[in-house]
Amino acid sequence: MKGAYLDHASATPVRKEVLEAMLPLFNEQFANPSNVYDLGSKVKEAIEEARANVARLINAKPAEIVFTSSGAEANNLAIKGVAFAKQKKGNHIIVSSIEHHSVLNSARFLERLDYEASFLPVDKNGLVDPERLAQAIRPETILVSVMHANTEIGTIEPIAELAAICKEKEIAFHTDAVASVGNTHVDVNALNVDLLSLYGPSLGAPKGVGALYFNKKVRLMPLIHGGIQENGRRAGTENVPGIIGFGTAAALTQKELPEKITQVRKLRDRLVDGILKKVEKVTYTGHPQKRLPGHASFCFEAIEGEALIFMLAQNGIYTNTGSACASKALKTSPVLGAIGLRADLAQGSTVFTIDAGNTEFSSQAPKIAKDKDSINYLLVIV
Amino acid sequence: MKGAYLDHASATPVRKEVLEAMLPLFNEQFANPSNVYDLGSKVKEAIEEARANVARLINAKPAEIVFTSSGAEANNLAIKGVAFAKQKKGNHIIVSSIEHHSVLNSARFLERLDYEASFLPVDKNGLVDPERLAQAIRPETILVSVMHANTEIGTIEPIAELAAICKEKEIAFHTDAVASVGNTHVDVNALNVDLLSLYGPSLGAPKGVGALYFNKKVRLMPLIHGGIQENGRRAGTENVPGIIGFGTAAALTQKELPEKITQVRKLRDRLVDGILKKVEKVTYTGHPQKRLPGHASFCFEAIEGEALIFMLAQNGIYTNTGSACASKALKTSPVLGAIGLRADLAQGSTVFTIDAGNTEFSSQAPKIAKDKDSINYLLVIV
Repeated sequence: MKGAYLDHASATPVRKEVLEAMLPLFNEQFANPSNVYDLGSKVKEAIEEARANVARLINAKPAEIVFTSSGAEANNLAIKGVAFAKQKKGNHIIVSSIEHHSVLNSARFLERLDYEASFLPVDKNGLVDPERLAQAIRPETILVSVMHANTEIGTIEPIAELAAICKEKEIAFHTDAVASVGNTHVDVNALNVDLLSLYGPSLGAPKGVGALYFNKKVRLMPLIHGGIQENGRRAGTENVPGIIGFGTAAALTQKELPEKITQVRKLRDRLVDGILKKVEKVTYTGHPQKRLPGHASFCFEAIEGEALIFMLAQNGIYTNTGSACASKALKTSPVLGAIGLRADLAQGSTVFTIDAGNTEFSSQAPKIAKDKDSINYLLVIV
Repeated sequence: MKGAYLDHASATPVRKEVLEAMLPLFNEQFANPSNVYDLGSKVKEAIEEARANVARLINAKPAEIVFTSSGAEANNLAIKGVAFAKQKKGNHIIVSSIEHHSVLNSARFLERLDYEASFLPVDKNGLVDPERLAQAIRPETILVSVMHANTEIGTIEPIAELAAICKEKEIAFHTDAVASVGNTHVDVNALNVDLLSLYGPSLGAPKGVGALYFNKKVRLMPLIHGGIQENGRRAGTENVPGIIGFGTAAALTQKELPEKITQVRKLRDRLVDGILKKVEKVTYTGHPQKRLPGHASFCFEAIEGEALIFMLAQNGIYTNTGSACASKALKTSPVLGAIGLRADLAQGSTVFTIDAGNTEFSSQAPKIAKDKDSINYLLVIV
């Protein structure tokens, strides 16, 4: 690819080793893992090995992992699964106001079913304040969900601190770690969470596979009812090749993550320095330090994010305006609204997400220059 | 593979052409289809082409297809999606008593939320009686779900007749066609249904992809809330390679289905004749004529289905006791109970599902003989 692909939060190519591990599962070991005969049990064993690899990456036990079809499904399963299972205990849930749509819209769905949802504000860097969480908790609160890292602004939330408040009151705590697992260290025990969502493609696994970690003490109503797959917690024949790919990607990630973090942070810092030095009227969004190592997000004045994305794409540089899931739906991002950004500035949102595949980027760094043409003032790419 | 794989209802190898069509989507055209730039739009176009192929196979319009991760998810989306969307209109749903667990357990989940569910009985061949459906309908009935063909006994239900009763009363009608699309002709207009579930692997697509057909007049609450994918009806980044594979498999199926039906029916009839002639004390379950062309199901006396499956598998013949999703969970099948089979006889359930890949089977047909040893009396495989 000419230029640089800097939109890894939207999609990442499947790793070569991952695809190789998946291939035999399509038409050689194709049996249904629920089957009792040998062909089925071998596939089941492969799934369990993948589950162990995914569990190990986040310091969980294999029995605490449910495979899903996406991060969105994992978030839905966490939010609705806990809400339905704890129906008799209470009807109040708390989520931050910068959650992914799959969390926000699950909360809104529950509001239609006599649940109540509170949406926690964040500060200008996107951080949730533990004191405000403590204040929002009511006797009928059954679940709190605050994401580990935000896709649009990169901010990493103080999860361990927030979770501790909930643990004391026996409230289930969920974190959406879709943007972070694969990009930074995530340890479910250190974070002290009850539920955590993750997504295969963030690790170089194919689209179509995600997972939910859940502490075995947490009661969980399935989102997809039916057969006994995933220990009765998620029905439907397993996406076997996807799961095997996820397992392989998790094992590779565990080995390579420390080096990747160093590498992408270096590239990210260089990009940020360059933009902040060379471009006038730009705001670096999200927390300047507490953020994902490969993540840089800006709001440029006097230019629409979408126009910029197109212009950059024409030059082979792929970036995003915010969350891919919402990029066609919304003119301004609720996340940027929540951090108090002026609406006109929020329109100029541009997110760069760097991955280990961006090594060549260091020798091909985009040169950023100021052009007099108002719409082209931002970037000239070499 | 030595012997014969006769468990295609559980799993089918991914077709070569399907895998080939999928491969570029893993690490070449890997972009997120929701992205506005060229790489994203190309992937989006590929998805829409696949959607058109799947729609064409069942005589639907592309906009009436929602991709899911499995048949079970499609069933959950149909049952819960209609029930939640029609919450204000009524709270009663009707499903047949031989539905797949994903339908039955979705209905039971709704019962916990102040919905009421009726479970329609079937006759000894597994048929739902249209008159009994008409009697079960109440003013508050919002949804009826009767499967197109049953996986365990192969019976094809009189869907058009059942659906007509519902249409007259403006009740949404859903049919689970997971076992039939790919194995027999399915036309949503001829069937007159509002919703229909299908599953990729039944067509030679990989595990991890299914779809729900829904008539645009039907209101549907998403099962997975979040972004705007699938026209706002199913959130989460699409399983792009799986969807492309599904589309390719649908196009191939449309071309080859008439020939496949003739071929598998011939093999099936030969198997059924052989077993009924050579084995004593065996019951052919399901409807003798109104059944899937590649489907043969029996209950053998004095032998446990699971023991038989193992014995056959040791000889390279792969079959099933019933539904793969439940094979490890249940000792006797609710389907066989519903058709009034004695519990001891139901224990000997064995299902053979034949696919186009079974051509060689005609020259390698299992010879079935009677052995004096009680557990081995059934089969001697050559």
